[in-house]
Amino acid sequence: MNKIVYLNGKYIKFKSAKISIEDRGFQFSDSVYEVIAVRNNNFIDINFHLKRLRRSLNQINIKYIFKYSDLIKIFLNLIKKNKLKSGLIYLQITRGVQERSHSYIDGLTPTIVIYTIFKKFNDNINNIKCVKVITYPDLRWLRRDIKTVSLLPNILAAKAAEKKSAYEAILIKNGYITEATSSNVWIVKKNVLITHPSNSDILRGVTRDRIKILINKYNLKLNEKKFTKTELYKADEVFLTSSSCFVTPVIKIDNKKINNGKIGKLSYNLAKMYISIT
Amino acid sequence: MNKIVYLNGKYIKFKSAKISIEDRGFQFSDSVYEVIAVRNNNFIDINFHLKRLRRSLNQINIKYIFKYSDLIKIFLNLIKKNKLKSGLIYLQITRGVQERSHSYIDGLTPTIVIYTIFKKFNDNINNIKCVKVITYPDLRWLRRDIKTVSLLPNILAAKAAEKKSAYEAILIKNGYITEATSSNVWIVKKNVLITHPSNSDILRGVTRDRIKILINKYNLKLNEKKFTKTELYKADEVFLTSSSCFVTPVIKIDNKKINNGKIGKLSYNLAKMYISIT
Repeated sequence: MNKIVYLNGKYIKFKSAKISIEDRGFQFSDSVYEVIAVRNNNFIDINFHLKRLRRSLNQINIKYIFKYSDLIKIFLNLIKKNKLKSGLIYLQITRGVQERSHSYIDGLTPTIVIYTIFKKFNDNINNIKCVKVITYPDLRWLRRDIKTVSLLPNILAAKAAEKKSAYEAILIKNGYITEATSSNVWIVKKNVLITHPSNSDILRGVTRDRIKILINKYNLKLNEKKFTKTELYKADEVFLTSSSCFVTPVIKIDNKKINNGKIGKLSYNLAKMYISIT
Repeated sequence: MNKIVYLNGKYIKFKSAKISIEDRGFQFSDSVYEVIAVRNNNFIDINFHLKRLRRSLNQINIKYIFKYSDLIKIFLNLIKKNKLKSGLIYLQITRGVQERSHSYIDGLTPTIVIYTIFKKFNDNINNIKCVKVITYPDLRWLRRDIKTVSLLPNILAAKAAEKKSAYEAILIKNGYITEATSSNVWIVKKNVLITHPSNSDILRGVTRDRIKILINKYNLKLNEKKFTKTELYKADEVFLTSSSCFVTPVIKIDNKKINNGKIGKLSYNLAKMYISIT
């Protein structure tokens, strides 16, 4: 836990950073968020995150007007105050405080919480951490493209994974893989990279976008399409991407080994390329 | 806004009732709740609510052990301190406070928030308020049987209703009515009462259960089955039930009048019966 938090315009101690019991983020999950990686004193893909934040706010009609530079200034202040070199910026914006009622009042003052979290990334290219995952039903609401704190189905799946000593839960809707609880899922089959198209069934990951740019730059083959659990099990390689897990290869899913339990060539190369540009 | 709130064992002023920014209710909607009506100094169906609360907690594995009598004692203290005669008890329990991580730590100390809300009920039998509603897509997650604060889709639908000067939004999934944003939906066709079966697609309303008991007691005809938007539009009568709206007749849906815009006979009788026992 870090010492200084930005809460509604003020820098205060973490323990003093408290919100009203009538905050709509607390009572209705009426709130969006972003998690931004900081590595070696640099933000990773910050413009992608702030663009997505603006979109999430717009989609649920939370009026929070900001310049990128204003938020970046706050992030820099927090990084300095908390002596963060590598880790995460957590930013949560709620619709604000209102006497409890499902329908919201227009023009509430949003609640803004920003703080830093220390984290060691999976960024040692000589020792990329590979993980085991499970599959789990995708019980989420139908607007997964908005990054909201309506995360209860995600956390139940994440706990199910943890109970089986797995790193993540890959979610399945009507027989198809959507994404994992907090990362996007990719498979490789015959040198083609395959991932779910970015529609309302998944969150369009910032790292997913960055990987797509790398794929294009290095003339790799990409197919954005839905794929089944069988295709997942039979993939040549599987990996996860997110702002906090970078490119993390998957070597076991449920009880099935992937690529004989070893990191695949494309996964390794993409992990390396990603780390080199961050 | 009322003056005294129960928060984690203490009775404190509303303005001082604040929760940690790392409360899982705030960051993950990892939290359940109940809203209990108090009318003329009496709790309505309190045992039903506390039974459902226990079930919700169990379903998402929040360990909060309580006796009904312990909570009732707190409710009575708040009613007294806040001079509530008629209104609502709002109770929210979260998994507790934890350093941010999707997967939760077992055995966290839950956060308990309880307070009272003044409310005038739709309980004047000589002047039952009838309402207009809209229909709206049901975007919610797949465990609507658990009363959680993952309410973002509900509030978006409720706001859409308010924008059209409607009281509620009736939610539609794959062409079938599930329920409304904070109430259950009933139709009457040829003297048969029809409502969605209580499975994971709807919240099993406490008032819904009470109405079923009245239907049985008065030998009325009930059919718990799924029904379509067309059946809704063509119903002889439509009404909503919830702990805070009691039995509220619907006389217009979108642009379709129901029962020529007048309260129906069975809706009226059930409203009257319900009020008489509360």
